Amino acid sequence: MTRLILASASPTRCQLLENAGLSFEIAPAHLDEIAFDSLFESEGRIAHAAALASAKARKVSQSNPDALVIGADQTLSLGNTLMHKAPNLRGARAQLQRLSGKSHILTSAVALARNGDIVWNTVDEAELTMTAFSDVECDQILALEGDAILGSVGCYRLEGPSIRLFKSVSGDYFTILGLPLLPLIAALRDFGALES
Amino acid sequence: MTRLILASASPTRCQLLENAGLSFEIAPAHLDEIAFDSLFESEGRIAHAAALASAKARKVSQSNPDALVIGADQTLSLGNTLMHKAPNLRGARAQLQRLSGKSHILTSAVALARNGDIVWNTVDEAELTMTAFSDVECDQILALEGDAILGSVGCYRLEGPSIRLFKSVSGDYFTILGLPLLPLIAALRDFGALES
Repeated sequence: MTRLILASASPTRCQLLENAGLSFEIAPAHLDEIAFDSLFESEGRIAHAAALASAKARKVSQSNPDALVIGADQTLSLGNTLMHKAPNLRGARAQLQRLSGKSHILTSAVALARNGDIVWNTVDEAELTMTAFSDVECDQILALEGDAILGSVGCYRLEGPSIRLFKSVSGDYFTILGLPLLPLIAALRDFGALES
Repeated sequence: MTRLILASASPTRCQLLENAGLSFEIAPAHLDEIAFDSLFESEGRIAHAAALASAKARKVSQSNPDALVIGADQTLSLGNTLMHKAPNLRGARAQLQRLSGKSHILTSAVALARNGDIVWNTVDEAELTMTAFSDVECDQILALEGDAILGSVGCYRLEGPSIRLFKSVSGDYFTILGLPLLPLIAALRDFGALES
């Protein structure tokens, strides 16, 4: 049985793999993600997200050469701008106001590493469009959500009251959640890591 | 403040509305859904699902004329065949074997009724494709899932180990869950039922 490690501290990714009935360990990669920002400018959002997922998988794989390591990342782009998490609710308000009335892209990447090398990876994207909401609506939602939304780069939770700020959500279910699960499961099957 | 009633006993739909921070009552419509099956043959799957959602909303609205009532339904079609829930795990096995290696359609309808009349409705569809899994794989998944999957007409849970039986899942996130939430929220806003 292949030893499987998730190189991510994301509760959502952990939950998705647990739901699928997989047995795995968790070993967050603790990567300096900001160091990758320049890649977004030079190589574009897909290469950037893929590089982040691969770097996480590779880092944890280097100290666990016998295991198959899953690295994953999700980024949010508004036009040509890469967005980062807001530090507080004041920052979240500004972030949401930037997204109001516009479409943004979620880019989700996942990679598998073994013996320090990437053996598989994929990237998928989803497009989300927000309504043109008022400052009053924004403040109502922030009051309902509280600090819960600071965990998300977009400062929203599709499973929370902030769903009311959306006009449409288009793309793969799992890509939106931050992990392209079906291609990952197919890859894990190929690598003999799917038996539970 | 508009009184809002969900005419459905579905825990998923209830959860979606609760997550969105809405205040509502629950009053299941207890409709004889089988009586609508002939509509599927004669009018097609969209009209059939819309009729079910509307009938539920109308029935509960008739005894709650002051309220805005949400009716919803989700059907599963394999080609021209409407599928029904399996009564037990033996039936679930047969159901999954029929879906193996093929694409099926989830049709989700939602309607709003007031004073016994339908005032708004919409229907959306998603396409899901299963891998061509073996009987052994099917039995492994059934053992992991147990009776939990009998609650779903497809005999699977995207949030359970049965996700491993899927090749692709294409369509709106909420349509797949059984409630086209974003159009519903927009309609509730128009009807003044969105304040929390």
